[in-house]
Amino acid sequence: MADPILVEVTRGPLVESTHAGLLAITDADGRRVAAFGDVERPTFPRSSAKLIQALPLVESGAADKLGLTVEELAIAGASHNGEQAHCDTAHAMLRKAGLDTDALECGVHWPERADDVARLNRAGAEPNALHNNCSGKHAGFLCVACEMGVDHHGYVGPDHPVQREVTAALEGLTDTKLDEHVRGIDGCSIPTFAIPLDRLARAFARLGTGERLAPVRAAAAKRLREAAAAAPFMVAGTGRFCTEVMGRFGTRAYVKTGAEGVFCASFPEIGLGVTLKVDDGGTRASEALMAAVIHRFVAKDDEERAFLDRWAHHALLNRRGLKVGEVRVADDVVAALGR
Amino acid sequence: MADPILVEVTRGPLVESTHAGLLAITDADGRRVAAFGDVERPTFPRSSAKLIQALPLVESGAADKLGLTVEELAIAGASHNGEQAHCDTAHAMLRKAGLDTDALECGVHWPERADDVARLNRAGAEPNALHNNCSGKHAGFLCVACEMGVDHHGYVGPDHPVQREVTAALEGLTDTKLDEHVRGIDGCSIPTFAIPLDRLARAFARLGTGERLAPVRAAAAKRLREAAAAAPFMVAGTGRFCTEVMGRFGTRAYVKTGAEGVFCASFPEIGLGVTLKVDDGGTRASEALMAAVIHRFVAKDDEERAFLDRWAHHALLNRRGLKVGEVRVADDVVAALGR
Repeated sequence: MADPILVEVTRGPLVESTHAGLLAITDADGRRVAAFGDVERPTFPRSSAKLIQALPLVESGAADKLGLTVEELAIAGASHNGEQAHCDTAHAMLRKAGLDTDALECGVHWPERADDVARLNRAGAEPNALHNNCSGKHAGFLCVACEMGVDHHGYVGPDHPVQREVTAALEGLTDTKLDEHVRGIDGCSIPTFAIPLDRLARAFARLGTGERLAPVRAAAAKRLREAAAAAPFMVAGTGRFCTEVMGRFGTRAYVKTGAEGVFCASFPEIGLGVTLKVDDGGTRASEALMAAVIHRFVAKDDEERAFLDRWAHHALLNRRGLKVGEVRVADDVVAALGR
Repeated sequence: MADPILVEVTRGPLVESTHAGLLAITDADGRRVAAFGDVERPTFPRSSAKLIQALPLVESGAADKLGLTVEELAIAGASHNGEQAHCDTAHAMLRKAGLDTDALECGVHWPERADDVARLNRAGAEPNALHNNCSGKHAGFLCVACEMGVDHHGYVGPDHPVQREVTAALEGLTDTKLDEHVRGIDGCSIPTFAIPLDRLARAFARLGTGERLAPVRAAAAKRLREAAAAAPFMVAGTGRFCTEVMGRFGTRAYVKTGAEGVFCASFPEIGLGVTLKVDDGGTRASEALMAAVIHRFVAKDDEERAFLDRWAHHALLNRRGLKVGEVRVADDVVAALGR
C-alpha cells in the first residue's frame, strides 16, 4: 500500500506537489503513540542518528580526557552549515586529538550559505574538509580512535574499531541486528544501516529518558543532548530548523535532521521518541512535519505554537518575494495527531 | 488512488527513496500512447511550457522586426544557468527592444553553477535580473510589448496585453479554458495555469507536427524548436539535461524542464507529445524518467541509448566520489513503456 500524503505544497488555489512518507512516535518500550504508513520498513537514518554515533566519544572517556567543550560535543552530533565557527570548532577538536584537517575522511563540499561561499571566493580560497557538514562528527570519530589507541586511517570503514563501536551503539538502542545486508555508504563515507523506522523512534525515546539504557549510556546521551541544547548553533547553523527549535525549546526537544527526508526527535519530558521519513527525500516536508509533531506534543504556549506554525505552514515566496503558495502539513495528519 | 512510483533511489542493497508521479504520451488529437497515474489532473506546467510562452514573440512579428538571432530565440524559451553567455544574450535582446536590465520584472537570483557564483564573488559583484534563469523569456515578453506598442511596465500581470497573448496560446494549444480558478504565480512572477497533464501532451504533439495549428502558429513553433536544437546551450547550459539531449538529438527531441518536477517533450518524427509530473517536485526523477521515454521512442542506435541510460540509471556519488547508489526508473515503468 502506498504511504500516506503527509505534506502538501500549494500554489495559488491548488495543491501543486505532495510528499508522502512515514511517521512513528513511540515510548522507550516501543509502544506506538502514532504511526503513519508502514513504520516497520527499514530506513537509513543517515545524519538523523548522529547523537547515537557520538555516544562512543563520551562513553569511551575521550571527551573527558581531551577536555571537549560543550560546543565541541554539540558539533560531534551536527550537520552544520560550514560557517566559520563550525570550522574552527571542528578544527579545535582535531588539534586536541593531535591531528589536523588532513586526517578527515569525510570529503569536501562548499558551505551551505551564500555568504560563506562568497567569503571563500573573495579570499581566492577553496573549501576544505572542515566545511563538510559532517566534519564535527568525523573529528569526534578521530578523538575516539585516539583514545582507543588505534590507527585512525580508514576510520570510516565498517570494520574499523571506531565504526564497530558506533554500530554496536545503534544495534543496542534499536534492538536490531545490523550487518552488510542492510548497509549502505553515507554521504560522508561512513556506513549507514537501514533500521525499521519504529525502532529508531524507540531508540530516541530511550536517549531522552535513559530508560532501558545502562547508566553510562544514559549519562552520555544526557550529556550530548544537553550540549546540543546549550550550543544549538553548532548542531546546524544560521536559520536552520534544528538550531531554531533547540534554541527555543532547550532540552525539551532534541531534534536532528538527516539526508533523504529523515528526521529524529526525542521529547524527554513526556518520554517519547519520533522518527519520520519523507519518501522522496524532501527536506521542506520533513521539517514541516516535525514542526507539527513538536506543536502537538511539546509546545506549551501561544508563542511557541506560533513559532512552530511558521514551519508547519510556511509561505512559499517567489524570486521577487511574493507569496505564491505554502508548504503545509496535510489537514488529516494534523487531525490524526490530535490536539 | 495514489500515483504510481516511477523512479527509485537506491543506496547499497536497498531502495532508500521513491518518486511517484504522472506521465502522459499522446498524439496531436489527444490519443494516448501511454498514461501512468491520473493524467487528467490539472498540473502547473511552470517553465516546461516556455516554448508556448515564446510563440507570441514570433507570431507577432517582433522576432523578425528586431532581427532576433537563433540564440536569442532559443533563450526566449530557456531556463538557463545564468552563465555569462546567457546574460549577454538576454541583454542583447533587451537592447534591441530599446530597453535595459531594469525593465526585467523576473527578480534576481544567483547563477546555478559554483564557477559563475565564484566569478561574481571575486569581482565583488552581486547577481542581477539577467542571471535569473527566466531572463531570456522575460526579454522576449518585453520585445512583444515593444512590437505591440504597449507600456511594458507590469508585463508580468495576467491582464497585461503580453500575458493575454501568452494565455491565449496556451488555451488554444491545450483546448482548455484558463481563468483565475486555475491560476497561480510562477517563480518569475508571471501567471501559471494548471492544465490537465494529457492536454499538455497534446499541445506538445501539435507543436512538433503542426497538426491542428494555424499555419502561422505551426511555423512559429517550428522556428522556435529549430532554434533550441541549433543553440541548445542557450536553453539551459553547461551539463544540463535539456542542453545535452537537444545537442545530441537535434530536432528529433524537443525537451524542456520546469520547476516542481514537470517535464514536456515533443518528438516530431513520430508525432508524439509527452508531459510528466513528479508529485514531490524532484528534478532528479523527472530527468531520469524523460531519459527513459526518449530511450523508448526516439533513440536509434546503441550510442544514443547508452547516453540516455546514463540519465535514466545514474550513479549517486558521495562527497568523496564513491558510488553509493543509483537513481533509476522503476523496472515496471520501463517494461510498460515497451521496447
